[in-house]
Amino acid sequence: MHLDPNRFREVDPGTRVLMGPGPSDVSARVLQAMSAPCIGHLDPYFLSVMDETQQLLRFLFQTDNELTIPVSGTGSAGMETCFVNLVEPGDEVVVCVNGVFGTRMSDIVGRLGAELIRVDAEWGRTVDPAAVRDAMRGKGPKIVAVVHAETSTGVCTPLEELSKIAHDAGALFLVDTVTSLAGMEVAVDKWGIDAVYSGTQKCLSCPPGLSPVSFSPAAIEALDSRKNPVSSWYLDMSMVRSYWGGDRKYHHTAPVNMVYGLREALRIVAEEGLEARFARHRLNHLALVAGLEAMGLSMLVPETERLPMLNTVCIPEGVQDGKVRAALLKQFGIEIGGGLGDLAGKVWRVGLMGHASSVRNVCLFLSALETVLRSGGFKVRRGAQDAAAKVYDSQ
Amino acid sequence: MHLDPNRFREVDPGTRVLMGPGPSDVSARVLQAMSAPCIGHLDPYFLSVMDETQQLLRFLFQTDNELTIPVSGTGSAGMETCFVNLVEPGDEVVVCVNGVFGTRMSDIVGRLGAELIRVDAEWGRTVDPAAVRDAMRGKGPKIVAVVHAETSTGVCTPLEELSKIAHDAGALFLVDTVTSLAGMEVAVDKWGIDAVYSGTQKCLSCPPGLSPVSFSPAAIEALDSRKNPVSSWYLDMSMVRSYWGGDRKYHHTAPVNMVYGLREALRIVAEEGLEARFARHRLNHLALVAGLEAMGLSMLVPETERLPMLNTVCIPEGVQDGKVRAALLKQFGIEIGGGLGDLAGKVWRVGLMGHASSVRNVCLFLSALETVLRSGGFKVRRGAQDAAAKVYDSQ
Repeated sequence: MHLDPNRFREVDPGTRVLMGPGPSDVSARVLQAMSAPCIGHLDPYFLSVMDETQQLLRFLFQTDNELTIPVSGTGSAGMETCFVNLVEPGDEVVVCVNGVFGTRMSDIVGRLGAELIRVDAEWGRTVDPAAVRDAMRGKGPKIVAVVHAETSTGVCTPLEELSKIAHDAGALFLVDTVTSLAGMEVAVDKWGIDAVYSGTQKCLSCPPGLSPVSFSPAAIEALDSRKNPVSSWYLDMSMVRSYWGGDRKYHHTAPVNMVYGLREALRIVAEEGLEARFARHRLNHLALVAGLEAMGLSMLVPETERLPMLNTVCIPEGVQDGKVRAALLKQFGIEIGGGLGDLAGKVWRVGLMGHASSVRNVCLFLSALETVLRSGGFKVRRGAQDAAAKVYDSQ
Repeated sequence: MHLDPNRFREVDPGTRVLMGPGPSDVSARVLQAMSAPCIGHLDPYFLSVMDETQQLLRFLFQTDNELTIPVSGTGSAGMETCFVNLVEPGDEVVVCVNGVFGTRMSDIVGRLGAELIRVDAEWGRTVDPAAVRDAMRGKGPKIVAVVHAETSTGVCTPLEELSKIAHDAGALFLVDTVTSLAGMEVAVDKWGIDAVYSGTQKCLSCPPGLSPVSFSPAAIEALDSRKNPVSSWYLDMSMVRSYWGGDRKYHHTAPVNMVYGLREALRIVAEEGLEARFARHRLNHLALVAGLEAMGLSMLVPETERLPMLNTVCIPEGVQDGKVRAALLKQFGIEIGGGLGDLAGKVWRVGLMGHASSVRNVCLFLSALETVLRSGGFKVRRGAQDAAAKVYDSQ
């Protein structure tokens, strides 16, 4: 079999501004950490890197959970990890669905032979705790699962009340924080979250490839008292934790350089401080929304239910989704996301995540979008930059 | 929750020579590629990187299989991918076991509710095709699975006869090439392999984190005619291939920078050429063995069954495994592996994989081991370097 190696050139992605639903822009420090020499996954130095990564993750998740580690896969592997370790065939599992990622949870629950109790909410709206309570009446679910920050719609679902509902019914509370973690508060212990997963490529501003997860003592107990083996060998936490825990028993080879990158991203978070980081995300979000609304655009999600790191903007009548996104990418190097599922063609998803949540990106995006819309013939109202500036000035 | 960010320093793994069972030393080119800016997983440039990575993987696997991609996890995720997509509850599955990784295959098959037909061979010896044929008598297995290069023992099992046995029985042939790929021939189409997986951190000399896999048309047919959904959402190839194939349907966020690294590692393989690369691995292996035997050490595996990239050396009577490996790491920065399972404490596993398979590493290792053994009081025969040099001179 012949192949001409000269057909393939050095990797050269060019310059992008990542303002989609993730990955977000990665800082040079994280990229540099990832390019440190690879060493053995049982090397004493790497073991210390693992320990520190766990300490930093516990800080970020605001938890004392011992089993707090990055799973060796992307955010969806983290989702699967939480369900596959805690769900057994026949278990009742409540899944709140208000977007793509709740739908994905339901799919996974079905594959595990569990009984799905699905609570649907409108896409673009938060989950109603009363509906969850109603759906659970007369049932004995093992788990109540919800997405904190729905990446497909830009909606934030508050967790404290749902946690109480889950625990009152004797269920474990399982939460997707892929998009929220490191961009807004995720207080695992305070909020009584029993199993949580996230991703690295959103507000952590690390490339995709790892999924931070954390399991509470109650979740560990459920894992330890399973009747059947975990259906996935790769994601079986009863074995993975032996490697990350004290006895360092070999399970699979950890993605060494990705862990370097995550650790550096976490260091950056710790240096900024959680409160300052969350405030930054909130401020840039408010400025962006003020600018967009000044242009005459409207947001999909009601004000009180919006995420600070992912903004869903309704595409105005007569404007062509694909053309606008292609022009933003081609003329400005800006990536934003389109809508998923029923929202395809109806919204844009504009991310302000981690390193990419900056006044620079807010101003750049408002200016770029205005230019592109105007050249497409759409009548844009003036004043976006002023409106954004006003938000910044008010701080 | 408070945490002092100054407790965590910049990543600095120091200098290592990775001569264990993997990861192997990664070249600067691959590390640099991994540190290129992260871009969107649906960005037109990244789609071209994916296409090229697939072309390069097909070249390396010597296959025309369309479904040839890197799975977003380490080698064990690739193992799970092959089984989870092809096995349904109740299926009969033959697994040949002559080491840790065959044992792991059996574990996975059990979790999937399949009927395991286990063919055991001595650890340190190849699998006997006659034993496989015998075990299959009167059965109708869907799959025959074997490890090409057993990383736990250093044994190579030839594949052509086993492939014939599998196909004669109407079974699919599933092969683990985690350690063999890119260090010796893996001819997927010529050898009739239906499902194959590998890792990036062995002879590809890329950091761990991805698992190249390839599925034959017959394997795809088996996947398409499943009665039950694949138990893993994350590894479900019926969905993953929509992203890597023509329609680019979003499944999960690809580990963008890891794919950059893999592509660069594959470019390096293509530049060297497969035959030259395999010859290099073989030559360095022969030189190492000549040197070790000249020192008075012996190999676990009979000469004709040895792998070129992983050498299992019997630990001489009276020599302390842990002390020697610690001294090699501390004094020379050299990592080698210990034995696994029944071979713990009995063998060392010395890797000469990919970038690390070099005359420099052979000479360094022989010299370092001699020094360490001698200082531990073990009587080492002289002449290791000469014996190795003689092998090189004979070429």
